[in-house]
This record gives sequence, structure tokens and C-alpha cells, in this order.
Amino acid sequence: MADTDLPSEHGNSQENRKEKDPVQPGPTNLQRARARFLKGISYFSGDMKVFGKWMEKQFFLLQLLDWVLRGAAQVMFVNNPLSGLIIFAGLILQNYWWALNGFVGTLFATISALILQQNRGAIAAGLYGYNGILVGLLMAVFSNKGDWYWWLLLPNIFMSMMCPIVSSALASINSRWDLPVFTLPFNILVCLHMVATGHYNYNFPQVLIQPRSQLPNITWAEIDVAKLFTSVPVGIGQVYGCDKPWTGGIFIISLFISSPITCAHAVLGSAVGMVSGLALAAPFGDIYFGLWGYNCVLACIAIGGMFYALTWQVHLLAITCAFFCAYLSAAIANIMSTFGLPACTWPFCLSALTFLLLTTGTNKIFKLPLANVTYPEKNLGFFWKLKKQEKMERAKKAEKESEEQQKAIKENIILNEKEQLRLEHERMEKGMAESEASEDENDETHVEDHWVEQQGTGDEEMGHNDLTEVTLGDYD
Amino acid sequence: MADTDLPSEHGNSQENRKEKDPVQPGPTNLQRARARFLKGISYFSGDMKVFGKWMEKQFFLLQLLDWVLRGAAQVMFVNNPLSGLIIFAGLILQNYWWALNGFVGTLFATISALILQQNRGAIAAGLYGYNGILVGLLMAVFSNKGDWYWWLLLPNIFMSMMCPIVSSALASINSRWDLPVFTLPFNILVCLHMVATGHYNYNFPQVLIQPRSQLPNITWAEIDVAKLFTSVPVGIGQVYGCDKPWTGGIFIISLFISSPITCAHAVLGSAVGMVSGLALAAPFGDIYFGLWGYNCVLACIAIGGMFYALTWQVHLLAITCAFFCAYLSAAIANIMSTFGLPACTWPFCLSALTFLLLTTGTNKIFKLPLANVTYPEKNLGFFWKLKKQEKMERAKKAEKESEEQQKAIKENIILNEKEQLRLEHERMEKGMAESEASEDENDETHVEDHWVEQQGTGDEEMGHNDLTEVTLGDYD
Amino acid sequence: MADTDLPSEHGNSQENRKEKDPVQPGPTNLQRARARFLKGISYFSGDMKVFGKWMEKQFFLLQLLDWVLRGAAQVMFVNNPLSGLIIFAGLILQNYWWALNGFVGTLFATISALILQQNRGAIAAGLYGYNGILVGLLMAVFSNKGDWYWWLLLPNIFMSMMCPIVSSALASINSRWDLPVFTLPFNILVCLHMVATGHYNYNFPQVLIQPRSQLPNITWAEIDVAKLFTSVPVGIGQVYGCDKPWTGGIFIISLFISSPITCAHAVLGSAVGMVSGLALAAPFGDIYFGLWGYNCVLACIAIGGMFYALTWQVHLLAITCAFFCAYLSAAIANIMSTFGLPACTWPFCLSALTFLLLTTGTNKIFKLPLANVTYPEKNLGFFWKLKKQEKMERAKKAEKESEEQQKAIKENIILNEKEQLRLEHERMEKGMAESEASEDENDETHVEDHWVEQQGTGDEEMGHNDLTEVTLGDYD
Repeated sequence: MADTDLPSEHGNSQENRKEKDPVQPGPTNLQRARARFLKGISYFSGDMKVFGKWMEKQFFLLQLLDWVLRGAAQVMFVNNPLSGLIIFAGLILQNYWWALNGFVGTLFATISALILQQNRGAIAAGLYGYNGILVGLLMAVFSNKGDWYWWLLLPNIFMSMMCPIVSSALASINSRWDLPVFTLPFNILVCLHMVATGHYNYNFPQVLIQPRSQLPNITWAEIDVAKLFTSVPVGIGQVYGCDKPWTGGIFIISLFISSPITCAHAVLGSAVGMVSGLALAAPFGDIYFGLWGYNCVLACIAIGGMFYALTWQVHLLAITCAFFCAYLSAAIANIMSTFGLPACTWPFCLSALTFLLLTTGTNKIFKLPLANVTYPEKNLGFFWKLKKQEKMERAKKAEKESEEQQKAIKENIILNEKEQLRLEHERMEKGMAESEASEDENDETHVEDHWVEQQGTGDEEMGHNDLTEVTLGDYD
Repeated sequence: MADTDLPSEHGNSQENRKEKDPVQPGPTNLQRARARFLKGISYFSGDMKVFGKWMEKQFFLLQLLDWVLRGAAQVMFVNNPLSGLIIFAGLILQNYWWALNGFVGTLFATISALILQQNRGAIAAGLYGYNGILVGLLMAVFSNKGDWYWWLLLPNIFMSMMCPIVSSALASINSRWDLPVFTLPFNILVCLHMVATGHYNYNFPQVLIQPRSQLPNITWAEIDVAKLFTSVPVGIGQVYGCDKPWTGGIFIISLFISSPITCAHAVLGSAVGMVSGLALAAPFGDIYFGLWGYNCVLACIAIGGMFYALTWQVHLLAITCAFFCAYLSAAIANIMSTFGLPACTWPFCLSALTFLLLTTGTNKIFKLPLANVTYPEKNLGFFWKLKKQEKMERAKKAEKESEEQQKAIKENIILNEKEQLRLEHERMEKGMAESEASEDENDETHVEDHWVEQQGTGDEEMGHNDLTEVTLGDYD
Repeated sequence: MADTDLPSEHGNSQENRKEKDPVQPGPTNLQRARARFLKGISYFSGDMKVFGKWMEKQFFLLQLLDWVLRGAAQVMFVNNPLSGLIIFAGLILQNYWWALNGFVGTLFATISALILQQNRGAIAAGLYGYNGILVGLLMAVFSNKGDWYWWLLLPNIFMSMMCPIVSSALASINSRWDLPVFTLPFNILVCLHMVATGHYNYNFPQVLIQPRSQLPNITWAEIDVAKLFTSVPVGIGQVYGCDKPWTGGIFIISLFISSPITCAHAVLGSAVGMVSGLALAAPFGDIYFGLWGYNCVLACIAIGGMFYALTWQVHLLAITCAFFCAYLSAAIANIMSTFGLPACTWPFCLSALTFLLLTTGTNKIFKLPLANVTYPEKNLGFFWKLKKQEKMERAKKAEKESEEQQKAIKENIILNEKEQLRLEHERMEKGMAESEASEDENDETHVEDHWVEQQGTGDEEMGHNDLTEVTLGDYD
């Protein structure tokens, strides 16, 4: 957990370097070494922007591979092909057939997005692939025909090609509230496939899932603390439907490479899920199996720094969201089981959307505009820059205001003097011609104009206007 | 039902007094007494604005109590601490433990809203408390562990603290259509808790609810008319999950204090629900128990004067909505029972939202802007004021138009005269110089300008413009 | 399928005739005969606009009948009273009692829309009737009391009168995305009625629908190819809940009269549904009965030319949508059966809405603005006109741009000359007065102004502005 400091600092220093480096007079050797080290890290951490740009000039199939790998990692909000590669390694460790299905899903989802001419930047960031990998994986996981049932690739390809359509449709709705679509397309399409065929089907039968109809057998004495601990990485593995702790561990590494904040929140989320499972008296088997963790992992990552800029308040909010998500997992799992369906990641989607729709009066909880979301460390940089800008603007405004107030005071003194002179002048004029009232009025303004002109500067009139501005500002 | 006249009159007179009283030359003793009486009533009826303002200067805990009491009454759309106090009395009469849970729910929901820095005005109106009281109450009502199971307070506090988050998120969506969130947060959170734990749970088991699987035993000869009549107050009591007729009766009183229109519609709604139950051949037990009433009560209040300004058309719409809501109650109760859940107030929310989304061509069905909703009597005042304003504006416009038309006619006469003069002038000029045609044209317009100038008033040109305006207005 | 060419041509020629006929110098006899033939067709095909206008001056009850007939046909997106009449004939062929219920439903839905003062144009197009006919028909179809159970007319009338309310409410939501409400009101209201009463009810029992709990008996040897073929018209008949092939055939004729494109897509959709049923190993009985077809029929019509302008890409999209809809049908049928409900047309609504929310980068998939949707042939005309306009505008713009560029080049030459003159002038002036720097600046601009004035044309400054515009345009 202590690791989070380092990278958040590093993310920051990356930002700062761009601005400060050329100005710094003479960095010490240590500083130089550190800068070089950080630059080296920046090549494969974060969203690997440099690599992405280099890729743009490469062969199309290589690009497609980059997109597929990024898509695989985007399930955890990570836009990094290296993480994607490690994730595929984890999947292969789990099950060859599942890994193949996942790859096919990602590939065809990306191809479908290309055919439908979706936004090229989004495709290159893997945003059309992550639903595909989940569709592919989970259709293989929940198939009752066992591994290497090749016919499964047909609905797999159809469903993953539907992903961009459903994504685009949901984005049309969610964008009205500046919300992402998360894994909703995956949830919709996998549930669609599973409930359309069901357990009792010749071609594509699903595993049997039934609602609980009696008290589960829970004996607190039988609890296995070691399994409880391994349930944390297993929970992270279950995001991809994997139940092996090692696979989960590999996924943790892939997260750490890209963004340590994400990684920390993933672990935290999984732990929160495990605790919630115990609190709600869930069968131990479910907890060990990571079923209570994976939604909380995703919810905790999404709220904790990904779509909100990470502050302490947001960190607490992320933990609250993880608890809420755990509750929701249990609820949705029970509801879905009535239809023979698993919970998928509905709980994560619903809880994260709820927490992203939240509006508060505090500026410590800052929701990033969807277009500016990258990864937690960079998001923080964006948030800090925005805050600094705001502060500077406020300071400038305050300075200007105080200046204007002083000016206004001076003006007032001058004006008062002028007014006295004017009044004298008036008295003199009145003495001369008291008969024509209407003309007098015209003269009066004329006199005033005259006096203003005598002062010799147009600035004064500006002063007048500024004065009114100041007063308006005061009432603001 | 006849009582509705009195208060609607009184609400009106309250409004009028402010404007007319100082102008009235000499009120009779009777009038004075009446005014004093109405003023006295205004202190504890309606939304108790004076009391609310006085509260603002009080000790924080006292303020919090005020908000909690208002929150308790807001379930029925009543923003009145006295009503809230009476409602708590009714709850205590029903069951101590439930009342305690309701109080804890309201308190923590309000505290959570304060922590999340929600709108202070909304908190002070109890708008963050009413979901809390329902969450607290219903979690106690549906718990299978019986009364005084103290652990229940933990999920109770968690869920009521989630209320403002869910409320805020839903408000972000509903506000796009200027719709309130009603009791949706309560429905979501209580269903969440109930279905997450379910009947087969060690820590927080719920009562067993199962779908109907055989014909109910309905013999019309066995109907108990007395019980049918008490089902009306029981239906009102069921809004808070209470099944004692006396508690329902107390709730009716609490409604009458604040707003007799609300009270009348509550009774009407409950009666409609009872009739619908009979029409759809529901088991008599359900009807006696008030299960057919409470949603209709809320729907009838919401449409009948609360979010629409009360007219005869709206009154009929409210009754239609109550019937629709009763139908929906049966439907949702059957669907929810599949998951072991009660219907909660989903039917009310969905039917009221449907009827609030309705758009019609008539101006007799006027939906109040959400920000101006207070209580039916005051809403009516707002509606009448708006209508009067509109009428005055229309009258003014009509007057202006007729004036302009007369002006235009006069203008026309003058213009015709001028035109004749101009033509003569032209003829003369033509006689002088017929050779250069193009220059002539320029002169012509010059001459016209000249004539216009000769008339000596800029008003005339205004007249021209007004004329075109009139014609435009006519085609509007 | 080859028939589609003819009418699309005819729809086009209809459009063209209006513009070209008076200009054409001398049409041959063949052309004249063809024009007369097409004009004759236009009287009863398409949306029968001429008939609709003639109807406006008729007796109210006759108008109402026109609206009811149009409402009956609008289920298939056909705004044509003749088609409606034929559809009623088909219904009578199927079952007198169902036809009566359908008529009552359409009638009362239309009357209710009139009472609620909904948009008169929409009422006249039958847009408030089509949910009514479906509500009436399907309530009769799924009633367990058999035919001629007269009490059923009561909930029938109530539910069909609720149609415009639910339609209006849903339109308030869907209009934000410029989407139609499709048959959602029907789905909501029929499911509401069916689940509210259920199978175990004294007054209004529904047929028993239960989820599948064992493998269906599918033997590929037993497949009946003839029945498989008749399942295509039966699928079209099932849109109205009819299972007789002849009724389906009559419906196909009614579609062909109004719009052959619609007709072709209906047949195509039904075939796609049948194939999908076989692919997903559905019981043959369901496929023969048309249960796999009717949703695909509607989805294929909606996407294929009705709400998108028909191009080859859209045609492929419509077929994809039909496959997706078939999948969704199976899924929703299974989910709904848990509650004892049929799938209704939920699958069509959800799949069509998803495909209408799709956004792509290609202009070959053009979604018509909802207000301009009529029938596929006319929609195509609208699309072509729009495209022609766009092309012309683009050509005009390109022309203008090239002109401006030439102008700008000329300007530049002149400006350069002027600049040289100015510089000389400046040099001279500098020689005269080098002391007062600030005043010099003022003069400088003055001099420039002077030079501009000397050129004697205001056009030049325009040229300046245009030049910047061009550059802006280039970066666009």
C-alpha cells in the first residue's frame, strides 16, 4: 500500500518535468539519474503513449494486436498493451480454451468496431475490445459442453461482434450524463446468450445455476484463514472469470505496471468484498471462490482515482462504493439465479454508475470530464493543474479587484473635488441664465463632459465602468 | 370531503390577505376574527414556514430534530414537523421497535446528507429523511428475527446512510425531466437488503414471501364489510408498513393538519385501491390488510394537487392514476414475490412518474415546476397567480394591439394624404425633368424622406414599424 | 423480392413527376400511360395522403373509422386505411372474438387520445391506435376464459384507454434521443394486466406459461419442411397474435399494397427468425407456430428502410438486427416465462431501439429525423433529396472558395504594392518626426487607414475578412 506514494509522485514529476526541466539551472547527478529512471518507467507504465504513437506507423496487423492487448487490459481500466500481454499470460495459465475464446472475442469486437467505423482513437485505446474479451471468456466459462467445443466460437463471434453496436447505443444514452458504458455491453450480451439457450439446450447448454432454497451450511469454526487471504487475488482473477490465485497474482502485477493507484484499489476492493461476504453470512465457498470480490475490485478502481480525481474523500467514497457493490452483488446474484444466470458485472456497473451520478457541494470530490479520463496518476495531474489554474485566476481576480477598489477610492476623491467645482460653476451659470430650464439641463451635462475632458485622460471613464463592475462583483 | 372547500378557501385568503389587508378600508369584526383565526392556523398548518424560519436560529440538535420530523412526514409529501411528530406517535402506537428503527433511519439519512454536503434547503425540508424512515421501518417490518434484534441496526444505518447517495444519483437522472425521485431510493435499498440476504440467511433473514401457485379461496358471501371500511385507514397506515387502523387514523389527522387536500386524496386513493382489489379478485385478507391501498394513497396525493395544480381535470387524472396504480400494485407484487420481495412502493413510483411524464394539449392540466412545489393549497395559489398574470398580459397585449390597429388606421389616412401630395409633387417634378430615369428614382425616395421629415415627428416611423408588427402578430 | 425495384422506382417517379412533368416537352404515349398508372397507384398505396386530406372534411365518425383502420395497420408501421381494412379481414378470418377485441382496443385508445388532447396529426396517422389493437387482441388471446367472455371488455377498455397516457409518457423520455416508442406501451400494459391477474385468478385468469425445466424433444429427422415454410407467413401473422398461415398471407398483401420494401423486409425478418430458431435448437413447435418470427419481422421492417434510409449497408444492418432480435426473443421469452408471461414484442422494441441508438462514422447509415419518417419509399426520396442538396451546397462552397482564393491572391498583390508605398511613406515621415514615439504609432495606423481609403472601395476590407474565412475553412 505504501507503494502508492512513489508512483503518484512519479506521475506528478513526469508532468512537472516537461515544464521545469528546461528552466532548472543545473540538476545534480542524483536528480538526473532519477529523471532518466522515471523516463524509462514512463515508456512501459501508464498508457504507454510513446509506444502507441510509434505503433501508428506500423503494419496494420501489428496495430490490431496492440489494440487487442489494450482491450484485454481495459477491463480493469488499464490502457497498456504490456499489461494486456501479462493478462493473456495469466489466462493461458488458467485455461487454454478460455484464453483462446477471450482472444477471439477481443479480436472480433475490435474488427466489428472498425467495420462500423467507430471512433478510431477509442478503438486504438482498446475501448471496443474489453467487452469482447469478457464475452468470449465468460461464454466459455459458463458453457456446459466443456472445453474445446468448437461450435461455441460461432455464438462467441456473433456476440463479440455485437459488442460495438450495444456499446455505441449505450454510449448514446450514458453520454448525456457524461458517464462511461463500463462493462454493460458484456453483461447484456452474455446474459442474453445464456438465458436464450439456458441449461436445457442441445446446441449451447449453460451450467446449471439455481436460487438458494435452504439455509447454507456455515460453521464459523470451519473457516480457513489461508483461503480467506488467497480469496483476495482470486477475487481479482474473477474479473476475468479465473479462479486460480496465481492468475489473480499475475493480474495484480499487470495492474501495478500501469498504475499503482489502480493496483492498490483493486486489492482493497477485493478485501472489502471478502469482509462483506462474511458480514452477510455468505457460504464460505463463494467467498473463497472470489465471487464476492471481483465486482468490488472494479467498483473500487473506477471510483478510486479513475473517474474521480483521487483525494482522501474520494478514497473513502471508493471504499463505501465497494461495500455498496458487495451488497449489490449478493442481491443481483440472487435475482439472476432465478433465471439461471450468474451476476456477471452488473453489480459493479450499477454501483459505479450510481456513485458517478452523485452530486455534492464539496470540491474535494471532483468528477473528471469523460474525455479527460486516462489513468489515476495522470488524472491527479490534470486535477492539480486545474486547481492551480483556478487558484491563480482567483488570485488575479482578487488582485484586480483590490486594485480597482483603490482606484475607485481615488476616483471618488477626484470626483468629489470635481463635483464641488461643478457646483460652483453651476451656481455661476444659474446666476447668468435662470430662464430656460430645458437648455440648462443640456448645458449641465455639457459642463460635466467638459470637466471630464479637462482631466485629459480617457482612463477616468474606464474608472467609472470599473467601479460599477466592482459593485456588481460584490453582489455576486 | 366537504372539508376541502374550507382550506382551499383559507389557503387562498391567506394569499390575498397579504395583498389586500392594508388596503381594505375597514374590516368588520367578523372579518377580523376570521383573519386572526386563519393566521393562527397558518402557524401550524401547511409547511410551517414561520416555525422553520424561527428554527434556523436554534441549537443544531433541535434543528436536526425538526428535519427528522419533517422527513417523517415527507413520506406523504407533507413538509410539517407537527405532522411528523403525530406520525411518530402513530408508529409508537403500532410497535416500539419499528418506531425506533424508523427514527434511526431518518436520523442517519439526514446526517449522511449533511456529510455529503447536499443542498441545505432540501435537508431542512426533510427531503433526505423520508427515504431513511421507510428504509428503517421496512427493514424492521420484514426482518424474520423478530423485534429487538439489535444487530439489525447495523444494516439499517448503512442503508439509510446510502439513501442520500442513491437519491442524489437518481435526481441527476430525473431532473432532466423535472421529476422528483419519490421513494425510489427506499425501494431500491430495501429490496437490495432483502434480496441480498433473503429468507435463508443466518445474520439477517427476511420473512418468507412466495408467489401464488393456486387459486385463492374467495367466497363473496364471507366478505366482511366492516373490515372493508377499516381497510381505508389501514391502507394509509401501510404507507409506513403499519397494519393497525388506529395508526392509520392518526396518520389521517396528521395529513389533515398540514393540508386537507392531501388528506382527502389519501382517503380517496385508499378507497380506490380497495375497490380495485375487489375488481381483480384479490384475496380478501390482502385487501383488509391494506396492501391494495398504500400505493394508491401516495399516487393519488402526488397527482391530486401536489405536482399538478388541482383542477377538476387533474382530480379525475388522480383517480385514474390511483386505479392504474392498483393494477400495477398487483402486477409488481406478483413479480417481486418471485424473488421473495414485497412490492414496496414501486407501483406508486412508476405510476406517478408515468402520469407526471404525460404531456397534453390542455392548459387545465398544469404541472408545477419542481422548484415551486410546496403543498396543494399553496400550489393552487401559485397556479392562480400565474393564470392571472397570463390573463393580464394577454389583456395588455390585446389592448396594445387594438391601440396599434387604430394608430395604424390613422397612419394610413395620413399616409394616403401624403401619398396624394407626393404624387402631385412628382407630377410637377416629372414635368420639369423627364430625361434621366435613374436619377429620378433616387429623387423620388428623397422626396418621400423629405415629406416624412416635414411631418416633424419620429413617432411616425415607429408607426410604420408597429404596422408591420401588427401584421406579423395577425399571422401568428 | 424482385418486386422491390418497381415500387422504389415508382416512389421515386412520383417525387420526380411533381418537379419534371410540367417541364417535359413531350412525353411519349408509353410514358403518359405509365404516369397515369403510377398516379392511380398513389391513391391507395403509401400513406394515402390524398384520401387522408379528403377525409378531413368528412363526418366525424367516418374520420374516426379512418384513424382506427390506420391504427390497425400502424402495428407494421403502415399508415394506410386500406391495409388496415385488409388486416381486420385477416383478423376476422382468424377469430371473430379476437377481431372484436382488437377493434374495441383501437377505438378506445383513439378516443382516449382525443380526450387527453394529444397531437391531432398523430391521432389521424393512427399512432395512438396501434398499441390499442395489440392490447385488445393479446388480452383476448391470452385469456384463459375462452372466447366470448364479455367481462374481458372491461379491462380491455381500461387498458386501451391507458395506452395514450403511457405512450405520451414514454415519448417524453424517448424523444430526447429522437426515438419512437414502438409498441412499448402495449408491452407494458398487456404484461401489467397478465401478471396482475395471473393464471390463478377468478375474474381474469391467463393461460398458463411456465419456464422450461427439461430438455425439449428435438429429433432432426422429424422436421417438417412444409411447416417450416409456412412458418414465414405465420410469423408475420403472429405480430397480431394470429397463428393461421392464411391470415399471415393476407397481412403480407396488406403490407405490399402500402409499401413493397416493408413487405420484403417483413418476409425476410420472418425467415431470419425461423433460421435462428433452428440454430439455437428451439422446439420445432415454437418455430412452426411463428414465435421466432414476429419480433424479427417488426425489427427488420423498422431498421430496413423505415427509420433508416434504405441503402445496402442499412439492409445488412436490418438483417443483423433481425438475428439479434431472434436471440433476444429466446432470452426474453425465457425470462418472462418465469413470471408466467409471453415475450410480447419486447425483443423487437429493445433490439430496434439499440440499433437506432447506434452512431457510426459512415454517412451510408442515415437515421431519418423522427418527424420526417413516413414509409420506406418516401424516406428514400427524402434521403436522396437531402444528399443532392448537400452535394450542391458542397459544389457551391468549393466554387466560392476557389473564387475567394483567386480574389485573395489578387488582394495580396495589391496589398503588397500598398505595403511598399506605405513603407516609403513611413520612412519619409520618420525622417520628419522621430521624437514622439507614442504619437507616431497613432499616425502609423492613421496612415494605413488613409491608404485603405484611397483605394476607394469598401470591397477590399471585405476581401480581408474573406481571406481569414478561407483560412479558417481550410483548418476546418
